[in-house]
Amino acid sequence: MSTENALIDSALRTWKQNIDRTDKFFSGLSDQQLQQEIAPGKNRLIYLWGHLTAVNDALLPLLGVGPRLHPELDAIFVKNPDRFSPDTLTGKDLKRIWDEINQSLWTAYSKLTPAEWLQKHTTVSEEDFKKEPHRNRFTILLGRTGHLAYHLGQAVLTKEKN
Amino acid sequence: MSTENALIDSALRTWKQNIDRTDKFFSGLSDQQLQQEIAPGKNRLIYLWGHLTAVNDALLPLLGVGPRLHPELDAIFVKNPDRFSPDTLTGKDLKRIWDEINQSLWTAYSKLTPAEWLQKHTTVSEEDFKKEPHRNRFTILLGRTGHLAYHLGQAVLTKEKN
Repeated sequence: MSTENALIDSALRTWKQNIDRTDKFFSGLSDQQLQQEIAPGKNRLIYLWGHLTAVNDALLPLLGVGPRLHPELDAIFVKNPDRFSPDTLTGKDLKRIWDEINQSLWTAYSKLTPAEWLQKHTTVSEEDFKKEPHRNRFTILLGRTGHLAYHLGQAVLTKEKN
Repeated sequence: MSTENALIDSALRTWKQNIDRTDKFFSGLSDQQLQQEIAPGKNRLIYLWGHLTAVNDALLPLLGVGPRLHPELDAIFVKNPDRFSPDTLTGKDLKRIWDEINQSLWTAYSKLTPAEWLQKHTTVSEEDFKKEPHRNRFTILLGRTGHLAYHLGQAVLTKEKN
């Protein structure tokens, strides 16, 4: 494997590991457990899972690899705080959507070459990208991997000692 | 910048961004505020900060770039749970140690070439590394970046709405 492909491979493995951990945590919960708050007065687990699902879905157009599959998630899980919208999705619904989106992302990730990972993402202008070439697909991937970890760290507070 | 150097650059920027966010959060807190629990009965902020500091310190030998600067942190912040050890460090102490370690890491990171980032980390055997070449320095960097985000997500629960 070339140096550049091996670097991409590490990043994709780290993404996948965070997806798998998040999936393992949320998929095993009942609808009642998904109602738990991560701390008193804070977001419920269902909201965090929906939020991560919506943000992953938005990666498809942000990386320029496809249209959104579930733009309807944003009103519930991104643009508004928890409890603003009535609960219309069960854990089973969310699991299906989450899997669908992550599968689409993984298929797209697998097709990108190292040079394509370094191309600009779709919300930065050509002009800004010339000055700030780090605003590329790869930096987005790494940032969104951290976003998964950030909220998973919160979610586990409902379960584990730490 | 070559493709491989640009990929490293993205990863180092993402690391730095997480360090800066974590630093901004913890450095601004008083010793009294550092006593806050992230959720009832869970770790205190001082423990999370010490834990991240200790884990960063352990990166120096793990990446093979130098000896530990503060191995004494492990007994307090890694090997034992919060409140097991008496509080011997103030926020001011921790800030000094945190900065010292992160500066050493940054200096080391800046010297590694892409090929060196793909070399094995120090706790995997030569034999295992042949079979699993992704167990390299770069994968460790990405994993530890996620570790920062994971605990920062918990820490902010004491402050922000979400």
